[in-house]
Formats: sequence, C-alpha cells, structure tokens
Amino acid sequence: MYDVPEQQQVVQEGDPALQQPVIRQMVVQLRAMDSYGTYDTWSDARVLDPLVLTKERRRAIPVVGDPDETTLSRVKAYYNAIAQMIERETGLLAVPVINLTHEGFGRALILVGKLVVVDKILRDVHRFGFDSLDAVVAEAGKLLGKAVAQVGEHRVVAEL
Amino acid sequence: MYDVPEQQQVVQEGDPALQQPVIRQMVVQLRAMDSYGTYDTWSDARVLDPLVLTKERRRAIPVVGDPDETTLSRVKAYYNAIAQMIERETGLLAVPVINLTHEGFGRALILVGKLVVVDKILRDVHRFGFDSLDAVVAEAGKLLGKAVAQVGEHRVVAEL
Repeated sequence: MYDVPEQQQVVQEGDPALQQPVIRQMVVQLRAMDSYGTYDTWSDARVLDPLVLTKERRRAIPVVGDPDETTLSRVKAYYNAIAQMIERETGLLAVPVINLTHEGFGRALILVGKLVVVDKILRDVHRFGFDSLDAVVAEAGKLLGKAVAQVGEHRVVAEL
Repeated sequence: MYDVPEQQQVVQEGDPALQQPVIRQMVVQLRAMDSYGTYDTWSDARVLDPLVLTKERRRAIPVVGDPDETTLSRVKAYYNAIAQMIERETGLLAVPVINLTHEGFGRALILVGKLVVVDKILRDVHRFGFDSLDAVVAEAGKLLGKAVAQVGEHRVVAEL
C-alpha cells in the first residue's frame, strides 16, 4: 500500500487527465471496492494518487514484497476499467480475470466471448503504478485499441 | 481435504481406468505437486482415491467450507491434465488458468493462443470430486473433444 498525506499528493486536483473516460472509470471502480468508506471524503485526485509512482516513490517501495488488498484493488480497478471501455466500444461483454500468486506474480486477462483480448504478465504487483495519469491513459488506450481491433478481426470468436 | 486410510479406498488397484491417458496424466500432475513426498509410498489408485466422492463421502463433507491446498492441487491436476491432452491433440500450447476465491468459487480456463477452449465455473471447490474414475475419463473426454473441435474451427485465433 502506498497512501500519502494530502500535501505530498502528486496528482493535481485540476489535472485534465481526470476527465479521461478510463480515469473516471477507474475512480468508479476504486470507490466501488472501498468497502470501509476510506475514500468517501477523498477527492478523485487523491483516490488515484497512489497509482502514480514517481521515481522517489518507487525507491521507497521494497524490491520484494507481497501486494496487499489496497494495491490489488488498484490493479483490478485498472483492468476492470479497460474491460468496461472494451464493452462500450464493442457492445460485447468483457470479463477481466486477474490471476495472482500471493507474491504478486501472475497474469491479467480480459475475455470477450471465447477471445482473449488482453493478456498481460504481472510481476511485482506490490510496485504496481504508472509515471503519471497521462501514462495510464496512454497505456490503457493502447490495450483498448488492440483489444477492439482483435474483436473486429475475430468477431465470430468474440461472440461465442 | 479428504484422505482415507487404505482399507476404505474406493478406487481399486486393478481399475482399468487407471490406464486411461487423462488419469495417468493426473497422477503425474498430482505427484509433481506433492512437495512433501506424501505420495511417495502411495499407489496411483490411492493418490487418486480422494477424487472419487461416493454419496457417503459427499455427505461427510460440510456444505460450506474453504478448499485447502490438497484439494486445490486436485483441481489443478485435473485441468492441467486436460491442457496436456489438448496440447497432444492440437500440437499447440494450452495454458490452464485457475481463478478461485478463498471460499472456493471462481473459474477454470484453458487458453490456446488467444482462444478460450475450456471455461468452467467452479463452485464449492472444497467438494471437488467425481462419482468414479470412469466419470473423470468421461467428463475430461467431453471437455477435450469440445476444445479440440474449437481449435479446429478457429485455428487462426488458437495460433495467435
């Protein structure tokens, strides 16, 4: 877990990336998984902030470690958000499957029908994060583009 | 876990089903996961025995429960064995992905390339088992047949 007091926040409240659909969807997902209501009084920027790992923050995280529930919820929020976007673009159900060992190794899949549209190896999940929100938008956009193209190419399998 | 003393064994030593490829492969898988060497002195029939749940055995297992490592190893052995058979029949790599909550709910997938060839909802995994070894052979054979047919139909996706 990497929760920071507000004053050290890296994500600025007015960051235009906060308006990007994938980021908004991640906020929805993170708030949905926040069963203790920790985020209730937090701004969207603050909820997303721990996902941005500056060099300093990366240095502060041990190289080896087990991911905790909060970190896992961020991984899930990311792939759930991408699955949501795939659904919107293709009109087909997209199912995220996150498969991790306790040590934080594994893979993230997104399935559309019988088609695997996202297949990412996950490593060192306790260090899960991005350089910036813009980096989230860029990487998610790439995955989304590939996924939608694959559905287009193999629509029959995606509709199975 | 459901380990029985030898005298109560349901699987007979001479059971012809022990010679079936999928059963032999399950034994290989179970022995491979047996890191403490518990099975070293056990016959194949005894290793497989807890997978056969007679009505009496089913009754003895609580309705609600968390699956332990030994039970999970049996679930894995089953799907790993099927993945192995798919590889043999298709000549393509088949990857099993078992995704379970601690409560024993989830799904078992087998992926060939970008094609999902097996997709089973898992429930009550602490009660994982079959009526007999013949039932294992029959069910595995059905899954295998469907998977191989799907690969044949969507070979392009399976080779991605």
